[in-house]
Amino acid sequence: MITDLDQILSASAKRMKRSVIRELLKMTQRPELISFAGGLPSPESFPVEQLKQVVAEVLDTDSARALQYSETEGDKRLREILVERYKSNGVKNISLNNLMISTASQQALDLIPKILVNPGDKVICGLPSYLGGISAFSIYGAELIGIELDEQGMRSDLLEKKLEELKSKGEKPKFIYVIPDFQNPTGICMPEKRRLEIIELARKYDVLIVEDSPYREVRFSGTPQRTMYELDGNGQVILLGTMSKIFAPGFRIGWIVAHEDVIDKLIAAKQNTDLCTSSFVQKIAARYFDNGYFEENLAKTNAMYKSKRDAMVKAFHKYMPEGVKWTEPEGGLFLFVTLPEHINAEELFKIAINENVAFVPGTVFYCNGEGKNTLRINFSFMSEEMNIEGSRRLANAIKQMI
Amino acid sequence: MITDLDQILSASAKRMKRSVIRELLKMTQRPELISFAGGLPSPESFPVEQLKQVVAEVLDTDSARALQYSETEGDKRLREILVERYKSNGVKNISLNNLMISTASQQALDLIPKILVNPGDKVICGLPSYLGGISAFSIYGAELIGIELDEQGMRSDLLEKKLEELKSKGEKPKFIYVIPDFQNPTGICMPEKRRLEIIELARKYDVLIVEDSPYREVRFSGTPQRTMYELDGNGQVILLGTMSKIFAPGFRIGWIVAHEDVIDKLIAAKQNTDLCTSSFVQKIAARYFDNGYFEENLAKTNAMYKSKRDAMVKAFHKYMPEGVKWTEPEGGLFLFVTLPEHINAEELFKIAINENVAFVPGTVFYCNGEGKNTLRINFSFMSEEMNIEGSRRLANAIKQMI
Repeated sequence: MITDLDQILSASAKRMKRSVIRELLKMTQRPELISFAGGLPSPESFPVEQLKQVVAEVLDTDSARALQYSETEGDKRLREILVERYKSNGVKNISLNNLMISTASQQALDLIPKILVNPGDKVICGLPSYLGGISAFSIYGAELIGIELDEQGMRSDLLEKKLEELKSKGEKPKFIYVIPDFQNPTGICMPEKRRLEIIELARKYDVLIVEDSPYREVRFSGTPQRTMYELDGNGQVILLGTMSKIFAPGFRIGWIVAHEDVIDKLIAAKQNTDLCTSSFVQKIAARYFDNGYFEENLAKTNAMYKSKRDAMVKAFHKYMPEGVKWTEPEGGLFLFVTLPEHINAEELFKIAINENVAFVPGTVFYCNGEGKNTLRINFSFMSEEMNIEGSRRLANAIKQMI
Repeated sequence: MITDLDQILSASAKRMKRSVIRELLKMTQRPELISFAGGLPSPESFPVEQLKQVVAEVLDTDSARALQYSETEGDKRLREILVERYKSNGVKNISLNNLMISTASQQALDLIPKILVNPGDKVICGLPSYLGGISAFSIYGAELIGIELDEQGMRSDLLEKKLEELKSKGEKPKFIYVIPDFQNPTGICMPEKRRLEIIELARKYDVLIVEDSPYREVRFSGTPQRTMYELDGNGQVILLGTMSKIFAPGFRIGWIVAHEDVIDKLIAAKQNTDLCTSSFVQKIAARYFDNGYFEENLAKTNAMYKSKRDAMVKAFHKYMPEGVKWTEPEGGLFLFVTLPEHINAEELFKIAINENVAFVPGTVFYCNGEGKNTLRINFSFMSEEMNIEGSRRLANAIKQMI
């Protein structure tokens, strides 16, 4: 072994930390433990029987292409299907050249800073924001600037103040990272007015928006909001989608929708990163859509998640002590809990583990280290019964700290 | 759209070029054209019937895990199988913690510079070397130093001279990039003596070796050489393997074997890059091995490639004009052709396209822009008949330039 591995590491490597959540997940695999920590879809949502049929069809009719290398930008049929779905939902400014496939959204969150961020560049994100996003940006040396959320998502007044402040110093952030649909970790869905305000600011200050939207179609009630990509219609927004929550995360299929010039750069970046996403899983996904299975399975999945959310929210109302607040989102996979100020969720975590229930302390989602009294609760993976029992255990743990 | 996309691109993005080969491949998709340009395995090698069975088994017995997120380091069973295969081939210094799964070898070629290379760092590679490797390193700002090959691979005398020269300037390259088994593009297999010489130099100068070995098991004749990882046995070598040439490139499964400390850093890097490689394809691959299909299919594939190589080599002997030289490798997917000095292979390319045959001009594999009179010829993808006919056409094109 070379003598000085630590010394020869790149600046990027020195910025890398293993994900707190993924390490937590490893700790929480005792069978008696109820884990609300992961962001996992329920295995009941996986369309196993349909997949068996679809895979057999793909291997029977298209194996020479399904098992071979394929285009970096993704399988053409799958891209067509995704573009058509956006169009049929009213998005006008989209054609095949605006959409590429990524190896799930996490790859998009790596490719975007790869083409945009030099060490020291500013990136704006919500307080809190998805850990996998802010962590991927940090590795490229991005300096994260957090903007507080209110119950409608990222606060546009604070965003404007920050953009103005940066401008006065001659600085411009590389992009604004927003998760408008059932935000991870808060579950907040941003109303159209707020979306428009943020787009307006992005235009005024000439900054790109990265709209990360993995939960968009996991909606149980209320009215879908238009994507920021659609509302903008002018190439200001890079929109990320994924099949991980609405089909199967094990397929690792995501996509990026953006201005052609941006897509062109992202394809060059992807080419050097993994050449192409698995053609096998892309062909299967395309045929799954073409066979008409997608919408039917999504409706079933959302009905199941609605029950799970309802069970959990009801249990929260029943068990939680006074002073504990939580979001009750119309979709997504998470509730976000705010404890009384003096309770530290990392300390609560230890007590909760003793009570055989786990969650993610909210502070990991705050790029500024705040959010000590918050936690994220997943309601999609465990059964309704476990959601109720886990809520009871969590409430017990909290009561020990009040 | 923001006003200045080109100006806000990262330094990395400015170093990105779309792969010449992949762009060439798009140009050469006319059906009448015989393309020796790609590095594609033959679809005849894909075990379609066995896969149908294996996929059905995976979905019947293990769907909840096969379709879910999985560990960043890769599916445990698949890693065990790969470790056991190395052990049964005599490699002693390997355990589960030394091996991680990557989204095919290209991801390994991205993750390695990600954890090691700062802009301006030196990386040593062969003249010529795999384009996807040198291109991935360049994006991180690596300064490539080319070392000439002879018929045994990278010249150790020149390597020593270069390492000594760098040392005298107080410099140390981050790693030496070697493709010892049926090198891409030359097809050369490095004998053990040369491997040991390079390892010795790497130890003396305290430099890592990246041993990229996608073609190792695509051997038709001769005796397998021990991997440099095995010969070293001391953590100096990072070994890359892939299923792309021996199973199916569409699965995007590769692996990295290295010292635990290196693997640990690479896992952190992968976590932020794509979270995990598709659990679905990993589960399928593991069961494909467990069902005993792998060795049988590999033997069939290699027999087919041997016939294709033999047909092509025979045709070369028959058709090529005096002054043209080529390698006749014992494995891999490529012949490497050296033309008389005055013939430029990029000009030949245009004539060859008129003759309806394509190849890759060798100069793209030379980090110093040399190799103008060389070309790479793939013999695995086309049929034997097309290999013969394409060789005839290529010889005709060359004759027009002699």
